[in-house]
Order: sequence, then structure tokens, then C-alpha cells
Amino acid sequence: MGLRTPEQYKDALRDGREVYYRGELVPDVTAHPVIGKAVNHACIDYQLAEDPRYRELAVVSDPELGDYSRYYHIPRNTEDLLQRSRLIAASTREGATLVVLIKEIGTDALFALHVVAEEMAKRGKPEYKERVRKYYELCRDRDYGVAVAQSDVKGDRGLGPQGQAHDDYYLRVVEERADGIVVRGAKTHTSVLTNTDEVIVLPTRAMKPDDGAYSVAFALPAATKGLKLLASSYGGIPKDPFEFPISASHKMMETLTVFDEVLVPWERVFLNGETEAAGFLALTFVKFHRFTAVSYKLPLLELLAGAAQAIAEYNGIERAGHIREKLTKLATYHATVQGLIFAAAHNHEVVAPGIAVPNTLLTNVAKYQFASNYHTAVQMVQDVSGGLLVTGPAAEDWRSEATGPYLEKYYGGKKGTSAEERVRLLNLISDLTAGDYGGYQEVLAVHAEGSLEAEKLQTYREYDFATAADYARELAGIKK
Amino acid sequence: MGLRTPEQYKDALRDGREVYYRGELVPDVTAHPVIGKAVNHACIDYQLAEDPRYRELAVVSDPELGDYSRYYHIPRNTEDLLQRSRLIAASTREGATLVVLIKEIGTDALFALHVVAEEMAKRGKPEYKERVRKYYELCRDRDYGVAVAQSDVKGDRGLGPQGQAHDDYYLRVVEERADGIVVRGAKTHTSVLTNTDEVIVLPTRAMKPDDGAYSVAFALPAATKGLKLLASSYGGIPKDPFEFPISASHKMMETLTVFDEVLVPWERVFLNGETEAAGFLALTFVKFHRFTAVSYKLPLLELLAGAAQAIAEYNGIERAGHIREKLTKLATYHATVQGLIFAAAHNHEVVAPGIAVPNTLLTNVAKYQFASNYHTAVQMVQDVSGGLLVTGPAAEDWRSEATGPYLEKYYGGKKGTSAEERVRLLNLISDLTAGDYGGYQEVLAVHAEGSLEAEKLQTYREYDFATAADYARELAGIKK
Amino acid sequence: MGLRTPEQYKDALRDGREVYYRGELVPDVTAHPVIGKAVNHACIDYQLAEDPRYRELAVVSDPELGDYSRYYHIPRNTEDLLQRSRLIAASTREGATLVVLIKEIGTDALFALHVVAEEMAKRGKPEYKERVRKYYELCRDRDYGVAVAQSDVKGDRGLGPQGQAHDDYYLRVVEERADGIVVRGAKTHTSVLTNTDEVIVLPTRAMKPDDGAYSVAFALPAATKGLKLLASSYGGIPKDPFEFPISASHKMMETLTVFDEVLVPWERVFLNGETEAAGFLALTFVKFHRFTAVSYKLPLLELLAGAAQAIAEYNGIERAGHIREKLTKLATYHATVQGLIFAAAHNHEVVAPGIAVPNTLLTNVAKYQFASNYHTAVQMVQDVSGGLLVTGPAAEDWRSEATGPYLEKYYGGKKGTSAEERVRLLNLISDLTAGDYGGYQEVLAVHAEGSLEAEKLQTYREYDFATAADYARELAGIKK
Amino acid sequence: MGLRTPEQYKDALRDGREVYYRGELVPDVTAHPVIGKAVNHACIDYQLAEDPRYRELAVVSDPELGDYSRYYHIPRNTEDLLQRSRLIAASTREGATLVVLIKEIGTDALFALHVVAEEMAKRGKPEYKERVRKYYELCRDRDYGVAVAQSDVKGDRGLGPQGQAHDDYYLRVVEERADGIVVRGAKTHTSVLTNTDEVIVLPTRAMKPDDGAYSVAFALPAATKGLKLLASSYGGIPKDPFEFPISASHKMMETLTVFDEVLVPWERVFLNGETEAAGFLALTFVKFHRFTAVSYKLPLLELLAGAAQAIAEYNGIERAGHIREKLTKLATYHATVQGLIFAAAHNHEVVAPGIAVPNTLLTNVAKYQFASNYHTAVQMVQDVSGGLLVTGPAAEDWRSEATGPYLEKYYGGKKGTSAEERVRLLNLISDLTAGDYGGYQEVLAVHAEGSLEAEKLQTYREYDFATAADYARELAGIKK
Repeated sequence: MGLRTPEQYKDALRDGREVYYRGELVPDVTAHPVIGKAVNHACIDYQLAEDPRYRELAVVSDPELGDYSRYYHIPRNTEDLLQRSRLIAASTREGATLVVLIKEIGTDALFALHVVAEEMAKRGKPEYKERVRKYYELCRDRDYGVAVAQSDVKGDRGLGPQGQAHDDYYLRVVEERADGIVVRGAKTHTSVLTNTDEVIVLPTRAMKPDDGAYSVAFALPAATKGLKLLASSYGGIPKDPFEFPISASHKMMETLTVFDEVLVPWERVFLNGETEAAGFLALTFVKFHRFTAVSYKLPLLELLAGAAQAIAEYNGIERAGHIREKLTKLATYHATVQGLIFAAAHNHEVVAPGIAVPNTLLTNVAKYQFASNYHTAVQMVQDVSGGLLVTGPAAEDWRSEATGPYLEKYYGGKKGTSAEERVRLLNLISDLTAGDYGGYQEVLAVHAEGSLEAEKLQTYREYDFATAADYARELAGIKK
Repeated sequence: MGLRTPEQYKDALRDGREVYYRGELVPDVTAHPVIGKAVNHACIDYQLAEDPRYRELAVVSDPELGDYSRYYHIPRNTEDLLQRSRLIAASTREGATLVVLIKEIGTDALFALHVVAEEMAKRGKPEYKERVRKYYELCRDRDYGVAVAQSDVKGDRGLGPQGQAHDDYYLRVVEERADGIVVRGAKTHTSVLTNTDEVIVLPTRAMKPDDGAYSVAFALPAATKGLKLLASSYGGIPKDPFEFPISASHKMMETLTVFDEVLVPWERVFLNGETEAAGFLALTFVKFHRFTAVSYKLPLLELLAGAAQAIAEYNGIERAGHIREKLTKLATYHATVQGLIFAAAHNHEVVAPGIAVPNTLLTNVAKYQFASNYHTAVQMVQDVSGGLLVTGPAAEDWRSEATGPYLEKYYGGKKGTSAEERVRLLNLISDLTAGDYGGYQEVLAVHAEGSLEAEKLQTYREYDFATAADYARELAGIKK
Repeated sequence: MGLRTPEQYKDALRDGREVYYRGELVPDVTAHPVIGKAVNHACIDYQLAEDPRYRELAVVSDPELGDYSRYYHIPRNTEDLLQRSRLIAASTREGATLVVLIKEIGTDALFALHVVAEEMAKRGKPEYKERVRKYYELCRDRDYGVAVAQSDVKGDRGLGPQGQAHDDYYLRVVEERADGIVVRGAKTHTSVLTNTDEVIVLPTRAMKPDDGAYSVAFALPAATKGLKLLASSYGGIPKDPFEFPISASHKMMETLTVFDEVLVPWERVFLNGETEAAGFLALTFVKFHRFTAVSYKLPLLELLAGAAQAIAEYNGIERAGHIREKLTKLATYHATVQGLIFAAAHNHEVVAPGIAVPNTLLTNVAKYQFASNYHTAVQMVQDVSGGLLVTGPAAEDWRSEATGPYLEKYYGGKKGTSAEERVRLLNLISDLTAGDYGGYQEVLAVHAEGSLEAEKLQTYREYDFATAADYARELAGIKK
Repeated sequence: MGLRTPEQYKDALRDGREVYYRGELVPDVTAHPVIGKAVNHACIDYQLAEDPRYRELAVVSDPELGDYSRYYHIPRNTEDLLQRSRLIAASTREGATLVVLIKEIGTDALFALHVVAEEMAKRGKPEYKERVRKYYELCRDRDYGVAVAQSDVKGDRGLGPQGQAHDDYYLRVVEERADGIVVRGAKTHTSVLTNTDEVIVLPTRAMKPDDGAYSVAFALPAATKGLKLLASSYGGIPKDPFEFPISASHKMMETLTVFDEVLVPWERVFLNGETEAAGFLALTFVKFHRFTAVSYKLPLLELLAGAAQAIAEYNGIERAGHIREKLTKLATYHATVQGLIFAAAHNHEVVAPGIAVPNTLLTNVAKYQFASNYHTAVQMVQDVSGGLLVTGPAAEDWRSEATGPYLEKYYGGKKGTSAEERVRLLNLISDLTAGDYGGYQEVLAVHAEGSLEAEKLQTYREYDFATAADYARELAGIKK
């Protein structure tokens, strides 16, 4: 085994998981009008493996293991990292710029767990290594979708886990039993868990020596007693595909993931009280996951440039100086991120047990270049497009005899173009930049996979200031 | 007479106007679920006159004319301009950052028509002056709401009115009759006309000598035969006030305004074939209207700074260095625009017939400072707020016994704050920056009342490069 | 009395002051090749009073006091502030964008001393008020040039006055005697003291309760025993006016100002141990001085725009889209600062004893807009100008028969322009942006009259976040 | 043969070349106080080959050809490009951030000539190929320094070669003779030709069909009759190494290079009248040369970050939030350019006759990222450093008994640091950013190896807008 069909994936989601939407329990996520859309979107990760155009990219054929999803392939070298990056970009491109994520994020966590468990073994805690290996094989062999719950709800962001209004603002172990640990707390912004088989839970930050109860990592099936998923309603309105060409068909769900006294069996516990390893695990996950993040941003950046070019053509202004200026900036933006991803993959570091970690400095710089310039890019695309992004007609207006002919007549652009096509393109840009999907992408740009400040902090830590400062002192004639 | 009540305003809208929404004729705009919201929002301009807190600002008591709306007061000096600016800001503040506009924009056009008609009289066309005066008095004395239709649909933006795929991409006169002119064409992005009494139609740009048919300005009642209003569906979904604290209650409508062989009586014609005056009128309107625009942006800028400050407090990070950096930039942004508006009012120019025109250079610079920095400001507010902007719970989640207690417990912030209040504030910021209202504001920032390029062009024209270059040559030792 | 001639000013500088240049005592500053240039530059503040074009602006004719320099006029209202701002801009314009400063900065300090002494009197220390008044009248009536020494050398910037490598990193009182106080320490970046009559010494920051010895303010003649002025050598090379049209003739001196056990008579002591007033005085001075600062930046900003426009004309590219884009940005930059200065003057606050203080928020925002955008403006001017800024010919090349004709032939620009004029203009821009004068202006932009961080801090403090946050909470439906 | 010593290089410069400095003929460039400094700086390219630390990088040992300078190694693959890039960075690092260039630029031109001559051969002009090969071997085997003269003086930049005030604003062929062509005109900004053996002359732009006389490329020895080098005086003042740690010892010369009826023998003519190839050659050279350019910027970017870090440590503020923010931005800047260079080398294109051309899109994006952010980086470094950059003491001040002890006492920083070291570092930063060397680097950033606009134009041309726009249309539901 190793590859499931989309239908097998969907069937497995009818497992009694406790998902709430607008306060009500959802009996079958695949049948829910909003979450069902997210399920269909997530199927892309399975469809790619069946699609001849992508099969080679999406599937690894191993003499021993047989076929399995490339997402589960542990990267050993530059080419592995680049193939993974291309696969992530390809699935997101199929997803109309919305990342699929159900295999992407989970494997990032699994790679990090391998690295940390290896290190823990060196430090005299050998048990995690075997647990991680087995859990990884389970997920790979069953072709699971795996979510990751990392962000604690945090309460007062100026404080750590302790000293808060109550002790559960960070997820924690409240009991150790013979059969496992019992955890309580909640994780927020958990993506795709409404529709994955499993969830891996990681600490959100470095911990202090007395934060032992909060230094915990583990995995659970989505359908676990006490695990409650409160789905976000954001962007959940019904949408016409004419008006919302992206978001009418593509959706990702986030949940407030509540752990109400949940038992985790020992074989699924990957960290438990080792405070000094909490930050290491959090950070190692992030090293992989930011590389995933920048990889899946590429179709978005391409679409910004492409949509701007296309609408400029319809509007007859593609040769105007200020339009070319903006198109060039969008191209520069895309190429910068793409070039840095490439460099990050090449300049990777191989860490025990033989896993290629993308260059942390370059990955963070790529992510920062993406995130810090996103809103300005949106501004340029909106600028090129025109006000019709927010004043345009509805699908029904085109069908109406009373109004349709006027739209056909008056919403045309350059001679030889079709008014409907022009409006379709404007609707795409409106969906992409000016509706809730646009807002979602903006907020994701500055918060998902680490905030701007997190990227800056990591850049600051990774850059070799010591060598640079030595060069300065040398030129200044300062003796060492 | 001179002041209507909100109810009188609403009653007058049931006048048989031909408004379409999603392809269907709207029998009564005040009763329509979406347009009715816009009607209620527009009432603010009438409510202010009745509100003791605003009455002095909103009403002019003239010994001869009696009480009338200050919007109709022709500005003669700095204080008039500042009072007008304050009134516009106050009504927008009441409108929760959404401009009311039904008196603001129309009076901008009326002021411009006065200036142009005066100039036309000097050039030997005295008839417009009296028509404008009478029409102005009609609107003022009946306390009308007046829309302005300026933007032509344009077709190929690289061309002017002629040479397009068809001749109606710019509104034009197709017939002159004894009783008036007949016009055909369409204006786009027409704001508030679904719910004003009247509309003033202005040319969108300077015209060439053979563009006579396109050089036309006039006014019409909203309910005029052949005048068809195709309302935009953007942002028209039903909204819960908990999740959308602004846009659940506040709405502005735009229309594609079709003139299907519409007769305009001569006394309402203010320009007809004088090609050399088309650009003058378009630009004079814009001089007033950009000042209105920057004035109504102030509550929005204040809210960006205030919301960021408030959420930072709930999150317990208001003292963090990078948060203060962002708060300071938001404050700088607000203060810059505010200071420049003030300077523009003071450095006004009085033009015949004695109307104070806000300084064009400073008004455009204020508008540009607003528009070019808006998306970056949004980025900072989203950055300070956190990802919950797009992953938060619905109103029903709070009321549900299954989910409400978890939200109460886990969405708290700094000790002593309420989880619900924190989420309310996040919902406000989400509505303001990440939903369709947020997208609307972004697109408006770069397109409404002139695009970024239009503001730059006007700045370029108004700046005194000649004097500056003389200074350079003088210092360079170049003899004149 | 009240107005001196430039010659009287220069004569008074031969007073035995202890000035060192490149390690050597300067016997007569007016005759020194470098400092003498600064003396001549400083004369502008006296020449203006004699120049019919400026006399009305530069001189106040008081029925009681007779004529005196407007710099000494205590601002009481908007018009006083605007006149002062115009005078500062005018003298700087005469100074070819280099501020004159010898009366500007001293009067800023005198105004601040009035405000603080008034407050001290309220707090039960009446003696300072009379001392300040008398000292102010002395300076005004003798038409003195007055420097201000504020910046301590500071040592470790992460610490305050105490805990440093030695105790003199901040100037301090080391002895109190019957005839006065004895001070030790050094101030850095002291402008113009090589060529003023007097110096006012102010604390550089707020002090803590045990920093009494460091909480000191006073005034001294430049020629005082123990007061040693170590002049900076920066930019002191001989310069040909053809190659350096600005800096060959204009210079400002800075000194490390050493107080080597200097006695200050009691009547010249304005603060002595009142730790709580040190920050108040430092800040009040800055409120006036940042307004001075932005005022004197205006000719610089005008020259950037004007030089770019002029060289673009010589190069034949003034109509190119990207050139106009840059010219427009330079115009926007200039207009933004100018508009904010205007607004700051109007929105002043009158503080006891009746002095108009420019609006602190708007002044800081103006300064920040200037300072944060300066390098980008330089980039644009260099971009428009071309590489010849740093590869151009010398004055001798033009005079040489071997090379002159080639320059004449090959350095021409647009038809009808003169090669020499074009190169003169390029030399001006090179001097302004690419030589040591250019570097001086860049560093001044980010450090003089408060760093970027200081301006941001003040903006943060002055902005009304409380009202803004209330607005946010109100819209969010949060009850007070 | 193949490798010369620095002395051999210098000896060869005494060849009778006609160099003028400040209007006077320079009899021996190696002995000239300014140009001699440039000669010594240029020696670095020869020293590296003798330096054990660099020999492997600087020298290629070929079984057939023996040892020769790696600069002359024609790049065939990624590793060749990266080695070349590293060598360029290493020599520039030795040159204290000033590029050496005497082999870098000439080989860029030689590579381009190979590509163009190959193409010309395909088009039926086989003669150039052999000439280029022979000339390349001559330069390589004699280990020549080779300048490139490309920028014409241009006159009116709004025009091409024709229609100007005179016909020589672009270099042109004025006669064809049996022994060669005679050229007239001038090239500007020619770097290093005062001290190279040879110069290659290339067209500066694409030419029109009737611009045949201007479509010319060739090579000449520096000492050729009629070839007159008018050296720029910029930055040519004597400098103390204490105050100017970089520019006291490092210098590059530019010339106005006049071709006063210069005969070029046929075997050195590489283009003559083939108008359609002029732009191809200009652009191909630029493709190599911009890659050289970004490579040699790396030590500069490292120094900006390193100097900021080092001075922050001396000042005791290296942990302050706003300092870390700036350090992080400097690190991001460096890493971005470095990553993009790496990606450009990897994604090269191999063109006939088998030469690896760095990826044009990524190279231009790297260059643009460098150039567009340079002034802002300078601003940050100046900001971190403090005002002492332009108010600091001279070397003599330290040696003087009267002033030295005060400097020692008062210019200290954090406890345990040396005042002199701190001032040395400040002098380095002053030299780097605030004196004429700083200005030189600023102007180079926006003009050398193509202006910002040139980089943008190339980015616009290379980016695949067609594919991106197709993606947009596909998502918008627009059928092809």
C-alpha cells in the first residue's frame, strides 16, 4: 500500500470526529457545505498522484517500499528538496493558489521529529526515535493526511505559559498514566485538521526549565475522545463561481483545537517534559515548514504578475510606463522569492539522521521577502486593474435580459476583447485581492508559518555578523 | 425649508427609479435588503443636522436663507473649508469609516460648476451661470442628496472617446432638440445614486477639439426615463453584526449608470460641446472632491491606529519594540494626512465667483500620502492583530453550549480582559481589513477620487519646478 | 543697539577663544582657511538684516526696544512662528542649503529656558527666571551669535550618566563655590561654537533622581578659561568653487567641546541639580529646535527637486515617464514637509510665559518625513543626473588647451545647451549628494536635532492613541 | 607565459599612453599621486595569483595552456560561474570593497564577443570569430589588464546617434581604409583604462538600420595614437589612512576616452556596420557584466552589515530593538543578493560556442535588489553609527598633546573598548558612506553596469508574463 485514491481519503473522514461549525456538531465533514469544499480541495494531494502530468513528481517508486507519496520522502539532498518544493508548488497551482497542505505540513513535522528524536537519543532518551520512525511509517504507508497543531492560544503574549490568567493558555500535560499522558489546553489556527486523518502536536516556542508540563509533543487521530475542533466561519459564505472563481471552489479550514483531557498513548508521545528540547523541536519544524511556505507561495506570486499583465491587456494599457513599472516590480517580486528558494535548497545542511534541512538564513530571507512585500504587490495589482474590482456586476446581471446587454456593451475593453472575459478576469482579481479570500491571503502573508518578526529574528540569528564585523575591524585597522 | 428629516429623505426615494440588483428590478430601494442598508447609512447626513452634538457643524443658519445644510455652504475662506472638512470627517466617523457622500460629492460638483460657468460667461456663454445657480438653489433648498456620475466606462484606456470598439464608451450627446439634449452611454462606479434625489453628470477628462459630442455636463433626477442603475453586488451578502461590526450596518452602493437615450431639458444642461471646458470642469470638480476625499479618510486612519493600539493591549504586547514601531508609523500616517489637509485649507486660492479652492498641490500630496501608504498600514494592523483575524469563531459559536465555554476560556488575552471583547475587536479589524469591506477600502484607496497616477500627475503639474530649477542654476553659477 | 554688522560680528571672534584644528591652536578663527570659511558663512545671519530684500523679515522694529534681529523675537502666535520659519529658510537659501544656525539654535534654547524657568518658579525656584531674562536680553541687545552644546559624549549608549567607564561621559558639576559652579566633561557635535559669541549648555536627556550632578544648564562666553574647542576636520579640504559650488564657500564647524574644570558664575546657571527638570528642558529645547530644523531643510528639498528638473532638461529626458515619476516624488517630498511645517505653526500651543510652541506631533512628523526619506531622495537625484557626478572633469581640464576643447565638444547635452553649464550643474549635484558635503547632509538627516528614533519616540508619545482606541472599542461594540 | 607579476604589470603601463589629469599630460601613470594609487589597487588582480590563500581560485592550471588567470577562463557550467563570482568577490574584498576590475570587465567583453562573433559567423560573416579568438588568446596569454569603453557621451538622451547637436555624440567610423577603420568620438565613464594594457570598445545600445557608422566594436592598446584619456579628478584629494581607511589606499580611475581620428587595424575590428548586431553585443556584454557587478558588490554588503554590528557593539547598543531591526535588514539585504547570484549561476544558459551565460532574469533582479536598496542601507548604517561620522577628529588631533588626551578620554564607548578603535571604525564608516568614496559607491549603485531603469527593462523583458497571464486566464475561466 502507500497510495490512496481521493475517494478512500474522503471515506476515512467519516470517523466520528468532533467538529463544530457555527456552534453545531457536524455529522459528516465531507457533506458539509463549507468543510466539504475544503475536503474536495484537499483531494488535490491525492489526485496529483493519479494525474499522468504529475505522477512522476508526486509519487516515489521505491524498490523496497513500492510507490508512496513524495511528500513522505525524507529529503537527503538538493534534488530531493527541489522536487518537494516543485510538488508543493504544483499542488498549490492546481489549488488555484490555495495550498493543499494536508500532506505538506505533516511531513514537515515528521522530518523535524526525526531530527529531534535523533538528538534526544544522543542525550540518553532513545525511546522517541523508534516511536517517531514507526509513526512516520504508519502515516506514509497509509498515505495519511496529517495536520499540525502548534500555535497555543497564548493569552497574554507578553508572558510565557506561566503567570497567565489561567494555566491552560498553553497546552500541557495534566496527568501521567500507565497507558499514556493526559493533556489539556487548546491550539489555535490549526489548519486542515477538519479533514486529515491525524494531527501532530508540537510546542509553539522554547520553554524555560520549570515549564516541563508544557514541553510536550505527540500525535493523535483526528477522531479522538476529548479532541474538539471548533471550525472558523471566516469566508464560509456560499459563493458563485463566476464572482469568486477561486474561493467558490477552494477552501482551507482552520480550527480552535481543544484538548479536553485527552489521553495520548505512550507510543504517540514524542516529547514529554524535556524543556530544553521544546524550542529545538519548534524551530526545527519551522525550518522545514517555512521552506514549504515559500514554495507554495510561488503560484500566488505568479498569478499576481499574470493577472496584472492580463487585465492590463484587456484595458489597453499594457504598454503605459507606469503599468510596466508595476508589472516589472511584480516580476521582480516573484523572481526574488523563487531565486532564494532555489538557493536555500542548494545550500542546505544535512543533519542527523541524514536529513537535508533547507538553508535557514535563505529560507527566512525568502519568506521575509514574500511576506513584507505582499500588501504592496496587492496594491499594484489593484492599481493596474481598476475600480471595477469592487463595483462590478453579479452573475445574475449577465443572465438578465434587462441588464445583460448593457454589461456586454459597456464593460468591454480593448477592441477585439470580450466584455465577459474582462469581467471574469476582474472577478478573479477581486476574489484574489479584495474579498475574504484576498484578506485571508494578506493575513496569512504576515502570520502563517511564522510572523514577520519571527522571520526577522531567525535571519538575525543565522546571519554571520561575527565574520562581517571582523572584516570591518580589519579594514578599520583594528588589531584583533 | 432647507432641512429634511431622515424619513423625508427616505420617502423621496420611492419615486419609480429604475434600479436593478442581481438582474432584477428593485421596486423600493428603501426596502431592499442590501440597498436599504445603504439608505440607512446615507441617513447619517440628515441625522447629523438633528443631533445636538453636530448641529452647529452640520447646519448653517443664514439670516436670509434660514437654516440649510452646511454641505451646501459655498466655501469662501479657510474656516469654511475647515468646517466642511470637519463635517465630512464627523459624518464618516458616525458612518464607522464609511463615507456618507450623498451631500459631499454633489456639492463638490456644484462648486465646480459655479467656477466653470463663471468662466464660460467670461468667454461669452452666459447661460450656464444662471442655470447652475438655480440648480444649486434647488438642491440646497430641498436638502437633496446628489450623486455625481463622472467615470466613463472607457473601453480601451489607451484611447480617447473616438476610435473605440463602439462610439458609446464615453457618454455623448446623440441629438439636440428644442426641449433639450438626448444623451447615450454609461458611467461606471457611480456612488450613492441608488439613493440620492439627483445626479450630476460630468465629463471624465479633457477632450480634443473634435470630441464635441462628449463634452457634456448636466443634471437629472434619479427617476428619469431611460436612466437605468445597475447596482453592484459586491459586498452584498447578509452579515452578522458580531462578525462584521462595520459592514453589517454600513453600505455604499455603486452603479453602472446607463443613459439609454435620455432627454435632458435645457435648464439642466451645464456644458454642451465646449470641448475646451471639459477638462477644466473635470479638474475643478476633482480639486474640490480630492479635498473631500482626504477629509473623509481621517476616521479610517484614526481607526487603524486606534484598533492596533487596542488589540495590542488585549494581546499584552503594547510595549514591545516592534509593536511601538508599527503604532508610531500608523500615527505618523494619520498625522501626515491630517496636517496636509489643514495646510491645503489654509493655502487655498479664491477663484471667481469668490469660491475658496483648497490648495491643489497640497490636496494631491495629502491624497497621495494616504493612497500610496494604505496597504502598508493595513499590513501593520494585521501584523499587530494576529492570525485570528481570519481563523476566528462565528457569533453562533459563542451562543452554543457546546462551544461557547471553550471560546470564553481560550480566546482571552491579557489578564483582566474579556475574551469576548478581544474577539469583538478582532472582528472589527477583520471587517476593516480582511473581508470585502477591507478590500473595498483598499481598492478605493488606489482608485476613488482619482488613481495614484492621477494624483502624481496633478502634483507634477502644480509643483513649482521652474523656481526650484532656477535656484539650482543660480547655485551652479549658471547665468540666466 | 541691537543689530551688528557682519564685520562687528567677525571682530568679536578675535577674543582668545581656545580652538584647535588638526591638533593645533588656532590663533584667529576668522583668518583660518577652514574655520574662516565658516565665519563668512555665518555672516549671512547679519547680512540679511542689511539686505533690503530681507530686512523686513530679518529685523523686528519695536517701539520700545528699537530694531533687533527677528531671531530673538519670542514667538507669541502662528504668524511669529511662520515668520521665524521663513527667516530660517531664507538664510539657509542664501547659505546654499547649509543652515547658518548661529542665531537660530541659540534662540531655540533661550525660548526653552524661558519656559522651564517659568515652571521652576512655580515649583518654588524663582531665581532662574530673572537670570534667563537677563541673559536673553544680553544676547538680543548685543546681537550675539549663540551656540548650543547639548549632546554629551555618552560612552556606552546603553547606560545613563552613571556606571560608565568613567564619570565624565556626561557633563557634570564637580564643585559648587561662592562665585559659581565648576563643571567638567565634554559635549560633542557642538555646531558653530568656533564662531559664536556665546554657548548655552543644556542636558541631553531626562535624568534619574540620583543624577543631580548631571542636571545642569548654563551659558558661557566662547572665550572662557578651560573651555576647549576641538574642531572637526571633516570636509576641511581646500575646494575649487567650480567643482564644489556649495561647499567651496559654505561651511559649518562642529567641535568636541571640552569643559576642563570650567567655572560658571551663578548668574549664568539655569539649572543645577533639579533632576526632574533636566528632561523637561532637553525636550522643550528640542520642540523648538526640530521646528527650526525642518524649516531650514526646505531649501535643501527645493534644490533636490530643482536640480533634478534642471539636469533632466540638459540631458533631454525631462519628459520620460520614469524621470517624471522621480520628479513627482521629489515634489511630493518637499510639499509634504512644507505642508506639515505650516500645520505645526498653526496648531501651536501657547505655554507660560506666553510662548508659542510649534505643535510637537506635527513637528516631529515633519522631521521624520524629512529624515526617513532623505537618502531615497538623494538616490533619485543621482539617478536622474547620471554617472558623470563622480567621473567628471576638474576645473583645470576646462582651462587646458589640451583637454578643454574635448570637454566642450563631448559633454554637451540637449541641442542648444552649453556643455559647461551642464557640467556646472552636475558639479552642483555632485557636491550636494556625492562628496563630503553630500555625506554631511545625509548624516545630519538622520542625526541632527534628534535621531530618527527620537522623532519616532516623540510621535508615539504625542499621538492621541487613547481617543483612537476608544473609537475602535466603540465600533467593536465594547462597553466602556 | 600566462601570469605576470604585479611589477611586470606596472612596467607595461609606462608605454607612452596619453593620459591627462587636471588638464596636464601625465608622463608616468605609475608615479602619479592619484593614478598611481589606482595602479597599486589594480595590482591586486596580479597579487591574488601569487597569494597562496587565493592561488587555486585565481589561477587555472591547464594541461595544454599551462597556468593562466582564472578571469580568462571561459565559463562552461555552474561551477565555472561560481568560481568566477568568488574570485571577483575575493579580489574586491582584498580591495576593501573597491572592485579591481582590470581583468573582470575585459573578460566579460571577451565572452560576449565570442557569442556575437559565433552568431555573426552563422549569419555569413565568419571573419570576426577568428579575430576574437586570436585577440582573446593574446590577452589571456599575456595576462593583460583590459578596460571596456562602452558608454557614449550621448548628448541628448532623448535621441539616438543621429539628430544630435553634432554627429560625434556617439562614437563612429569616419573612414574605412585598407589597413583598418578610422573612428571618432568619445566614450565616458571608462573605468581603469588609465592603467590597463588594452581597451575593448563596444556599442552602447541597439542601433537603427541607418546607424551603420555607429555600429562598431574593436580593441586597441591603451597607448594608441589619437586615443586620449582625460582622467576624472573626483575623489583625487590626498587622504590620510587614519581618516580614510579605504580610499586613502584604494582608487579606481575613470576617463573621458577621446578617439581623435584613431586608426583600428582590421584584425582588431569586431563589428563594423552590422546595425542589427550592435544591440545584441551591447546586451550580451551586459549579461556577463551585471553578473560581475553583483558579485563584486558582496564584500560591500558584508561590510555594511559588519560595520554596523561592530559600531553598535562599541556604542553599547547592539541589543536595542531598533538596532537589531536595522542589522537584520542589512543581513537580509546581503543574503538576498547573495542568494540570487547563486541562483543566477545555477540557472545559466549555455549559448554557442558553449559559453555559460548567467540567468539574465535572476542577474538583473539581483542587481536591482542591490541597486534599489543601497541608499536605504547606507541610511541604516549611518543611523546606527551616530553623528560622529561627520564631526570626528583628524589624525593629527590624536598625536597632539593638547588634544590627544581629550579624545582618548571622551571618545570611548562601552566599557572595555578603546576610544581610538571606536574612532577608527567610525572613520571607516565615514569613508564608506559619507565622504567622496561613499558618494562614489552611491552613484555607482544606481548607474554602473546599467542604471536602475536598465535593470528594470531587462527584468520586464525576461520575465515570462505570457505563462503567468495564461494561468490567470485559466483560473478566470477564460477559454483560450
